[in-house]
Amino acid sequence: MYVSETQIRIHYALTDQMGVVYHGHFAQLYEIGRTESIRQLGFAYKEIEALGIIMPVVDLHVKFFQPAKYDDLVTVRTTLKEIPQNHKVIFYGEIFNENKNLLSTGEITMYFMNAKEMTRANMPEPLIEKLKVFFK
Amino acid sequence: MYVSETQIRIHYALTDQMGVVYHGHFAQLYEIGRTESIRQLGFAYKEIEALGIIMPVVDLHVKFFQPAKYDDLVTVRTTLKEIPQNHKVIFYGEIFNENKNLLSTGEITMYFMNAKEMTRANMPEPLIEKLKVFFK
Amino acid sequence: MYVSETQIRIHYALTDQMGVVYHGHFAQLYEIGRTESIRQLGFAYKEIEALGIIMPVVDLHVKFFQPAKYDDLVTVRTTLKEIPQNHKVIFYGEIFNENKNLLSTGEITMYFMNAKEMTRANMPEPLIEKLKVFFK
Amino acid sequence: MYVSETQIRIHYALTDQMGVVYHGHFAQLYEIGRTESIRQLGFAYKEIEALGIIMPVVDLHVKFFQPAKYDDLVTVRTTLKEIPQNHKVIFYGEIFNENKNLLSTGEITMYFMNAKEMTRANMPEPLIEKLKVFFK
Repeated sequence: MYVSETQIRIHYALTDQMGVVYHGHFAQLYEIGRTESIRQLGFAYKEIEALGIIMPVVDLHVKFFQPAKYDDLVTVRTTLKEIPQNHKVIFYGEIFNENKNLLSTGEITMYFMNAKEMTRANMPEPLIEKLKVFFK
Repeated sequence: MYVSETQIRIHYALTDQMGVVYHGHFAQLYEIGRTESIRQLGFAYKEIEALGIIMPVVDLHVKFFQPAKYDDLVTVRTTLKEIPQNHKVIFYGEIFNENKNLLSTGEITMYFMNAKEMTRANMPEPLIEKLKVFFK
Repeated sequence: MYVSETQIRIHYALTDQMGVVYHGHFAQLYEIGRTESIRQLGFAYKEIEALGIIMPVVDLHVKFFQPAKYDDLVTVRTTLKEIPQNHKVIFYGEIFNENKNLLSTGEITMYFMNAKEMTRANMPEPLIEKLKVFFK
Repeated sequence: MYVSETQIRIHYALTDQMGVVYHGHFAQLYEIGRTESIRQLGFAYKEIEALGIIMPVVDLHVKFFQPAKYDDLVTVRTTLKEIPQNHKVIFYGEIFNENKNLLSTGEITMYFMNAKEMTRANMPEPLIEKLKVFFK
């Protein structure tokens, strides 16, 4: 398993008139979690795109337990449970507030695709190499 | 079953650098679909809030089949399969482009809550009355 | 002068915890106003991009007089005071609510640019032709 | 003068199909800059709201010189040129990329307002005290 964490400060634009973070904006929190999780491996998501690979989201499943509020410093924990064997990768996310309350979980499924031909691809080899250390 | 449809023009701010609508922004398309579906019943979501009831989203599950693109005039079909019996309501959404291609489906679960006490509530009676016509 | 109007329903995602539309999101309202203003001419902004021309915003100046609120059906009035003589075009916008109250004005300056070389371009000829009718 | 800086990583949701940050989203970058500038003083914007004061934006003027791109780590510099003498405060912002290129400047005018009565207020005294150190 590869687990990483990153922190995000909730800014005003993410809130709605219910006084909490708009539910759809949690996708952005999970996105930032994924990107930072890849960066902590020593890779950057933009390097994946530079290799001609894009990663469209095919399934987004978010559960909401408690609201995230303005100025909360939330922690996004991102987990990869296995090294992708094909074009599909699932990122598991959890979001906690400063009191360690679990606010939300997310399961985000993405495909590796060749940007030009829009055909299925695999996770780039250099990224697999970095991940292997965590799956022994 | 209560089924309604509404159309949304995709504007620039909804796109990302993949050249398609950012996955998280589909939550907004489904939100607009729900709101217009209630309005077509002869009610307004803001009237629900005026009654002291809010409807937080507790589960958002979106599947993506084909991308939505800039300037697409998409149709959001919103379906209510049953009249809520308690605090929970599930809205089913489908998004089509102008060629009738199914781009995405969404299953959005919300709770009726008393805004002040944050306790569970039921769907407001006047809204149930409007819905009954469709569930005979 | 070329003046056009379009209507936009304010959805939840545009609001913030002050209970009004987040100030930065007015840029989206003005964007929709511009796009529809071009469409009403019988052209589409995406046709401009298809010609290899992009229109980055170089100056955004928005004034706020009254808040826009959830579910407001606002009218965006977009005005072009002259046919652009070079790479620069200024769109003037005004946003009104249903009571005809002026909520905001916007002055948005954009450049016509060749997308590939990122050099200055002119407004595409077919669009100028459509506009000429309004500037006699 | 009170000057402070904060860094923001550009995430995917902020980009549009031009491959750069959507112009309207710069308002969010300046907002984060303001909030962190107040936090660096030892205060929090949410404490201002807790005092019953809100700060609506009445004028937003942003200039764009170079695009901000995905994954850029931009620096937002926020400057207060004077201690507000009345209900009005102007924040000056500048955004730089990692190469120290100036991408954008922003001038954001806000009012201090009593949230309940929606009447003009002054900057809260404790915040003025913190600021005085920088204006001698």
